[in-house]
Amino acid sequence: MPLPSPKFKDFRPLLSAPQKPVAIIMGSQSDWETMRHAAAMLDELEVGFETRIVSAHRTPDRLYEFAKGAKAAGFKVIVAGAGGAAHLPGMTASLTALPVLGVPIETKALHGQDSLLSIVQMPAGVPVGALAIGRAGAINAALLAAAILALTDAALDARLFAWREAQTQAVAVEPVREG
Amino acid sequence: MPLPSPKFKDFRPLLSAPQKPVAIIMGSQSDWETMRHAAAMLDELEVGFETRIVSAHRTPDRLYEFAKGAKAAGFKVIVAGAGGAAHLPGMTASLTALPVLGVPIETKALHGQDSLLSIVQMPAGVPVGALAIGRAGAINAALLAAAILALTDAALDARLFAWREAQTQAVAVEPVREG
Amino acid sequence: MPLPSPKFKDFRPLLSAPQKPVAIIMGSQSDWETMRHAAAMLDELEVGFETRIVSAHRTPDRLYEFAKGAKAAGFKVIVAGAGGAAHLPGMTASLTALPVLGVPIETKALHGQDSLLSIVQMPAGVPVGALAIGRAGAINAALLAAAILALTDAALDARLFAWREAQTQAVAVEPVREG
Amino acid sequence: MPLPSPKFKDFRPLLSAPQKPVAIIMGSQSDWETMRHAAAMLDELEVGFETRIVSAHRTPDRLYEFAKGAKAAGFKVIVAGAGGAAHLPGMTASLTALPVLGVPIETKALHGQDSLLSIVQMPAGVPVGALAIGRAGAINAALLAAAILALTDAALDARLFAWREAQTQAVAVEPVREG
Amino acid sequence: MPLPSPKFKDFRPLLSAPQKPVAIIMGSQSDWETMRHAAAMLDELEVGFETRIVSAHRTPDRLYEFAKGAKAAGFKVIVAGAGGAAHLPGMTASLTALPVLGVPIETKALHGQDSLLSIVQMPAGVPVGALAIGRAGAINAALLAAAILALTDAALDARLFAWREAQTQAVAVEPVREG
Amino acid sequence: MPLPSPKFKDFRPLLSAPQKPVAIIMGSQSDWETMRHAAAMLDELEVGFETRIVSAHRTPDRLYEFAKGAKAAGFKVIVAGAGGAAHLPGMTASLTALPVLGVPIETKALHGQDSLLSIVQMPAGVPVGALAIGRAGAINAALLAAAILALTDAALDARLFAWREAQTQAVAVEPVREG
Amino acid sequence: MPLPSPKFKDFRPLLSAPQKPVAIIMGSQSDWETMRHAAAMLDELEVGFETRIVSAHRTPDRLYEFAKGAKAAGFKVIVAGAGGAAHLPGMTASLTALPVLGVPIETKALHGQDSLLSIVQMPAGVPVGALAIGRAGAINAALLAAAILALTDAALDARLFAWREAQTQAVAVEPVREG
Amino acid sequence: MPLPSPKFKDFRPLLSAPQKPVAIIMGSQSDWETMRHAAAMLDELEVGFETRIVSAHRTPDRLYEFAKGAKAAGFKVIVAGAGGAAHLPGMTASLTALPVLGVPIETKALHGQDSLLSIVQMPAGVPVGALAIGRAGAINAALLAAAILALTDAALDARLFAWREAQTQAVAVEPVREG
Repeated sequence: MPLPSPKFKDFRPLLSAPQKPVAIIMGSQSDWETMRHAAAMLDELEVGFETRIVSAHRTPDRLYEFAKGAKAAGFKVIVAGAGGAAHLPGMTASLTALPVLGVPIETKALHGQDSLLSIVQMPAGVPVGALAIGRAGAINAALLAAAILALTDAALDARLFAWREAQTQAVAVEPVREG
Repeated sequence: MPLPSPKFKDFRPLLSAPQKPVAIIMGSQSDWETMRHAAAMLDELEVGFETRIVSAHRTPDRLYEFAKGAKAAGFKVIVAGAGGAAHLPGMTASLTALPVLGVPIETKALHGQDSLLSIVQMPAGVPVGALAIGRAGAINAALLAAAILALTDAALDARLFAWREAQTQAVAVEPVREG
Repeated sequence: MPLPSPKFKDFRPLLSAPQKPVAIIMGSQSDWETMRHAAAMLDELEVGFETRIVSAHRTPDRLYEFAKGAKAAGFKVIVAGAGGAAHLPGMTASLTALPVLGVPIETKALHGQDSLLSIVQMPAGVPVGALAIGRAGAINAALLAAAILALTDAALDARLFAWREAQTQAVAVEPVREG
Repeated sequence: MPLPSPKFKDFRPLLSAPQKPVAIIMGSQSDWETMRHAAAMLDELEVGFETRIVSAHRTPDRLYEFAKGAKAAGFKVIVAGAGGAAHLPGMTASLTALPVLGVPIETKALHGQDSLLSIVQMPAGVPVGALAIGRAGAINAALLAAAILALTDAALDARLFAWREAQTQAVAVEPVREG
Repeated sequence: MPLPSPKFKDFRPLLSAPQKPVAIIMGSQSDWETMRHAAAMLDELEVGFETRIVSAHRTPDRLYEFAKGAKAAGFKVIVAGAGGAAHLPGMTASLTALPVLGVPIETKALHGQDSLLSIVQMPAGVPVGALAIGRAGAINAALLAAAILALTDAALDARLFAWREAQTQAVAVEPVREG
Repeated sequence: MPLPSPKFKDFRPLLSAPQKPVAIIMGSQSDWETMRHAAAMLDELEVGFETRIVSAHRTPDRLYEFAKGAKAAGFKVIVAGAGGAAHLPGMTASLTALPVLGVPIETKALHGQDSLLSIVQMPAGVPVGALAIGRAGAINAALLAAAILALTDAALDARLFAWREAQTQAVAVEPVREG
Repeated sequence: MPLPSPKFKDFRPLLSAPQKPVAIIMGSQSDWETMRHAAAMLDELEVGFETRIVSAHRTPDRLYEFAKGAKAAGFKVIVAGAGGAAHLPGMTASLTALPVLGVPIETKALHGQDSLLSIVQMPAGVPVGALAIGRAGAINAALLAAAILALTDAALDARLFAWREAQTQAVAVEPVREG
Repeated sequence: MPLPSPKFKDFRPLLSAPQKPVAIIMGSQSDWETMRHAAAMLDELEVGFETRIVSAHRTPDRLYEFAKGAKAAGFKVIVAGAGGAAHLPGMTASLTALPVLGVPIETKALHGQDSLLSIVQMPAGVPVGALAIGRAGAINAALLAAAILALTDAALDARLFAWREAQTQAVAVEPVREG
């Protein structure tokens, strides 16, 4: 297993004061394929966010540094995607009292059942809010983060309301009989 | 997640008096790929039906309006297809006393196991008759709807009987040794 | 495995003309613990029914005779409960065009997952409407049978409507904080 | 299935202006055994809450009224517990943009696997944050609700921090060798 | 669902006196893709067999005729392949005391888990010997049928022994490092 | 884990020439609770058998000796019960060409799902006929063994036929409405 | 959820130089019921060990300190037991290169299936050797730890060999026909 | 099923004195696709190894010979990959006291769930350390074998440490927004 090298020099600090309310973290680059849907949804709702790769297993120090510093860095909600023995959401929740939302990444052999159970079955005392496996979960993590932020952000609340209204309007009354 | 726009202007009312006995409803356009098999089977048995997209989650008002009005609109049986956290059949059954048949749509990650359990595990008091996951379930929902209607429709009963006879006759005695 | 003997001499014919609309059949005496809930619900709704033990595996000829004669005997809906490799509902449906509703009996090792899949995963062409595993499924099979019969029985329709209304009214607004 | 009658006359309105931030809703009285742990945790953190029985299936109108009115009634977060084909969290989320947290109630046959999948596998567009099956999930739903409210409530934030600190301190270094 | 027509006129009787010891039956033509591996293995071991399509659900009369007549027709072992709610092996076993071996056909949604449970979880009193899901199960059903017949057929016993020896010899000591 | 000591001195040889057609082997004493049902059924059918504890994992040499010598010792069919990572049936089948029937013992955590998959999912080339999990499987293994032996034992065939007839007769037509 | 208080004042440091080769860590006191079997087995093999409660979620700093310091403290193998979303074994493995063996604790709702998947499905790069769910896994973790240490400890190797010999000898040839 | 013939004449003895610490064994050539990742990882860490095909089912004598002779042949750790009813790791562990690590091969129908349970659910007394299903498990088996050997090999310990450091360094801070 030759080690991958980062595709560009990585000057970005892990935790600068971003003043962005949402952090989207994920266990590896390959999770981006799923988590980009969370990013796109936040973009559409005009919610600021940062994206970081934080591997619970390969970069545990980064996990500790990130999760412990997330509140001071100004984050309000953390969206964490991970697959397999998916420890990232739960360990992040163990290191910060910020709300943590977990997205189970679909896996090859078990299709995300392992990811889901590893994320949702947290013991009493350290909560993670789990969303659906895969793309739907990533989109909904963004929507739930937005709903949380909208509790004290009337403009966002209006945008979220409008988005949901548009979603409702977009559902045709009758299916197109194609295929 | 940019919102889809309906492919054609949707003038059709949700509930006009159709005088058609079966309503085939589904959670989204993508479920049509499965539910069209129910439609085809009803067509073959000359049973009238309407098709509607009713999303429990994206159009809950439409769900309430449809399910509450279904009996008055003349429907006798409702066939509802949905996937994942499939709430459409059960919620429809909570809003009407008409017989509701549920078709679990096959899903990407869990292959319809989520759909099946969300549909079949209804609590005592509000019944949904669940069919098999996917295409077979859609066809059988149509056949079960026809069997229900045939209880008081001798002509349909004869057509259903003939279809089943033909099905039996079409089974060769020996497999073709191809492949 | 010593064979059980019937507890009383069994003079009752399998299929006399009962003029009762529902047949509740089950694979063995032990299924009665579950299926009695279907009987009780039909009693409450004043829907006539007969109960029979029909074991697909131990009495296949009885199954054949029963299912082939069920329509002529005046039955309208068949409620069939079975556990494990639960073949009774599906085989009954293969031998009659009457609506067949299947109740998966909870099993010791697999808790009814085997029963559920054996009942619900019918191939295209022979439908069984499956209800929930166990007691809830038995109750709901009775309710769904009643809903089917109510399509052409206004008095039953009114009783069913009243039962559902009462069910709704019986739900307290606030939980009792006991325990 | 004789219908239960409420144990005391229920004068409490569904939605008075409670000015309490959390609503704990559940599908039936029997869910209280699980959801009381959420109530106890909110009590311990001095977070106000109301408890309501809202059955998606037996009281769909109440669900509709409650979820549509929840925001106006002053609720900020909804904690919803349900079992089996658990539609309450998802349907609530379809009717309000408030954050909805779902607690899968452990079930008899499938031990809450049905509840979990029915809650967590929501389609893109309508989020529910799912917690663990049973008691742990109820406690964590309360903690996650508190974490959400603590984002703009410094005193609660301090209480939550203190609770977590105490939880950490309470873990002995070495197991007691009993049993 | 237009009904398939047999590809050639089917003159072959269901049960002529074949004097062939093994019957390979299957629920549909599509199962041939799996069951042909049983046929090929029997061919290799020079064990005579007949192949028949016997659908428990679409041709229940044929099932009864075949299973009841199998012993008189000279069959010694029945190999039955079926998928989904796979009732063929169990129902055959209920109608004959001949040894019945069941092959779970791999299914689209549940990958044969439904087939496996429907076949293997037979109640006490009516045995089916289940093999692995899919091709391996078909081959092994043939091998187990051969082992049964070899108990009283020394020549077959020798061929079976030789085949197993050759199988053992064919396993290289070291893997070829390809790929 | 203190080691158990045999309850009585074990003078019985592993393989004397028993001239008994069935061997019932099991992984441990605790499996007897399940496998005794196989023994009782064989007793009822007057089929001779020996019982042996052969642990694939704790006594691999005994397994090797037993399985390699089983044919010479006169056994015709081997019934093997094992639980968890249940390797006994498959490994026995790898060491003898005699028919091997596997009984999955119900396990504490996974209820025999592990036992079942470990037994039934054999690779092509080495067959094991698997029966149901637990007591039903043990009984049916005995019945299937008897069916195999009855192919060339007319008296046993008659006894087996009579037993099945009695089983059929013992099924009452109507359930006793107790409980 | 009132917090438990340690049953005695906990003066024991987390990591003194124990010069004991095995650390048995677990997520909570309640895991001791399972992990004590690992301790007992190590005692029987005269392998030194320390026991510690290290909760990945409630004491993440302790986890960090323990795992990073384990090698310097002289531990050679870490046995980690955890249940539900069981992150302890994997996170320990992410923080030390020592061999980590994971024991899935049986859980109430999912019987340890969640624990097993959370432990075994580690991503490439950070290994955990998983044992069976529950007591058997705890015993085997001790035995595997001993086997690892025995590679360079001839006396332990002899004790382990003797233990395995005794285990083999303790298996009776014939089951006691009790019960 | 025509038997495959080895692609080249196989002169290599099963057990010559290799003086290589790791044996990678697998059930068939087709497992190489997975197990080659274990080989590549050991190569990268400069750990010597041999690869052998040892089929528990098709070559049980080879299994006995290999496992019984592995220690004398100088092996220290055995990595065993197998799929389906995966008996190779457990049976190897029953025949040697060397540490055995099991890799569940992904299977067609059940995706390796059968392999995983067949490997991990070993009874108390005979341990196998199970890794993840498929490629990740193969890589991690190599890493765990290396960690075991590194306990008494400082140079390997350094290489392993360096590899893990490089792995950590290779994780970019921010995901590349491709796709």
